[in-house]
Amino acid sequence: MSWNPMTQKVIAKQVLVVGLGLIGGSFAKALKNNGVCDRVLGSTRSASTLQKALANGVIDWGTITLAEAAAQLHEGDVVLLATPTLTVPQCLSELKDVLMRGVIVTDAASVKGDLAAKAVKLFGRMPAHLVLGHPIAGSEKSGIDAINENLYQNHRVILTPSPETNRNSLGKVVQLWESVGAIVSEMSVEEHDRILAATSHLPHVLAFSLVDALAKRSEQRDIFTYASGGFRDFTRIAGSDPQMWHDIVLANREAILAALDDFENSLDQLRQAIDARNGHRILQIFTEAKAARDKFSVLLVEREKNHPAIKKT
Amino acid sequence: MSWNPMTQKVIAKQVLVVGLGLIGGSFAKALKNNGVCDRVLGSTRSASTLQKALANGVIDWGTITLAEAAAQLHEGDVVLLATPTLTVPQCLSELKDVLMRGVIVTDAASVKGDLAAKAVKLFGRMPAHLVLGHPIAGSEKSGIDAINENLYQNHRVILTPSPETNRNSLGKVVQLWESVGAIVSEMSVEEHDRILAATSHLPHVLAFSLVDALAKRSEQRDIFTYASGGFRDFTRIAGSDPQMWHDIVLANREAILAALDDFENSLDQLRQAIDARNGHRILQIFTEAKAARDKFSVLLVEREKNHPAIKKT
Repeated sequence: MSWNPMTQKVIAKQVLVVGLGLIGGSFAKALKNNGVCDRVLGSTRSASTLQKALANGVIDWGTITLAEAAAQLHEGDVVLLATPTLTVPQCLSELKDVLMRGVIVTDAASVKGDLAAKAVKLFGRMPAHLVLGHPIAGSEKSGIDAINENLYQNHRVILTPSPETNRNSLGKVVQLWESVGAIVSEMSVEEHDRILAATSHLPHVLAFSLVDALAKRSEQRDIFTYASGGFRDFTRIAGSDPQMWHDIVLANREAILAALDDFENSLDQLRQAIDARNGHRILQIFTEAKAARDKFSVLLVEREKNHPAIKKT
Repeated sequence: MSWNPMTQKVIAKQVLVVGLGLIGGSFAKALKNNGVCDRVLGSTRSASTLQKALANGVIDWGTITLAEAAAQLHEGDVVLLATPTLTVPQCLSELKDVLMRGVIVTDAASVKGDLAAKAVKLFGRMPAHLVLGHPIAGSEKSGIDAINENLYQNHRVILTPSPETNRNSLGKVVQLWESVGAIVSEMSVEEHDRILAATSHLPHVLAFSLVDALAKRSEQRDIFTYASGGFRDFTRIAGSDPQMWHDIVLANREAILAALDDFENSLDQLRQAIDARNGHRILQIFTEAKAARDKFSVLLVEREKNHPAIKKT
């Protein structure tokens, strides 16, 4: 299923990207450059974003009306929905007809369970040509000015197909992502949401909370003046788009609350150890955490070196 | 009080650095290079560290016995104690005689209240030539191999003099730090410990706790495999030296527990908003946190541009 530039040129005649921010725009630009589709279409609600996207060669053709874009599509074309999480269901609803005609629709929303449930509600079952997915390539930056055609190089994309998903449609989505350099994995909707709650949503909740707590203090300016590089890195994700993260925490509420429970249990154990001056226990927790973090560093280095296309089925 | 290379050459005839890890070794190396003291002495308990320090030109002379180093010192020489937090009082005790003879002693421990209390216990009052301090230039790296002579460039050093502190001794310590590129501020011991608990100690406690919670999960490998750049940055400080952080949380226990209270209040409010699907409140918290974090980013950029020597008295 892996895409090979020597044997295969065009993966899809047309790809429509809905939402031309960091995620959608970077995908569109990369496809414009690698030539795996004949035409890259764009749809955005912002006229100024559309103008920039056309001027910067992000898309070949664009519109501010999703319906107008949908009218351009034929069977086998692919749509990437890269709008804010909570607006994806509305887009799906507007694309109902083309989806039924064999146009393949995938998305980039950070939460999959919420969307899968809404799709089933909308269509009565999971449509065969709907391939839910999530590129793990966010940044605290957002918007069309953050577009980077190399954004997906060596980054992971998780697809969460259901038993109803058409295997050819799934294959096309895999190839498109691989053509822009991504490493594609497949897993269940539930597994995706549980893992992302732990590794992404929970850290954002903690970073927003910490900065919120510090900002309320009277000595706020001093606190920031004397903060170090560790603080800068730790709180970087608190600079992320509030609306986007509002959408994500509402969409993945249950998994995030469960991850918070886990974290609060660990924090409570550490707090008790500090309170009781239990140096042995403190050292044990820190040592185990450092060992796990060091293991993660090794994984990261390996990933950057080997770019392995690990697939889970 | 600011050090000026055109008007003043030698700040102290001899500087002894006790502990030749990242903090002490980087200070020694920078002084060896800038020529503001005639001789840089080093003391470390590790014979192999001592050999490396001599071989790499970090110090001019060294020993593995603090007493032997102390015997070299005269009035007006300066000692930097850069050993682990909890071993600083033992060093102070061994330097009691030279401190009384007018040798200036400063330190680099991350917590000041605990040490000030121990010094008063040891000497009956704060010695005039003891200038407690803290360079905010840590890293998750440590040890002699991490030494970087530019470590202190544009980094802040907080000194916490008491009413008993000799102003000339304080001035010399300020000049030494400025000579290696640091921005020196002065504040009370209590203010230092409260600010550092919030900006450094608490984030470390949270990062260790989060990684600890995730490492306990059965799907640990998956969690790390799909973690993003945000997670990498957020958890970087969980790779810090466990023994060092064990020492710090024990030494600054009260201020850390108070900062944890603040954080847990904020987290609890956010948790309740998520639980209640209170989108308005979630958005408000995220928006305020992002605004505060963006303000911090501006401060960081300013600091790197202007290198201002802001002093509080």
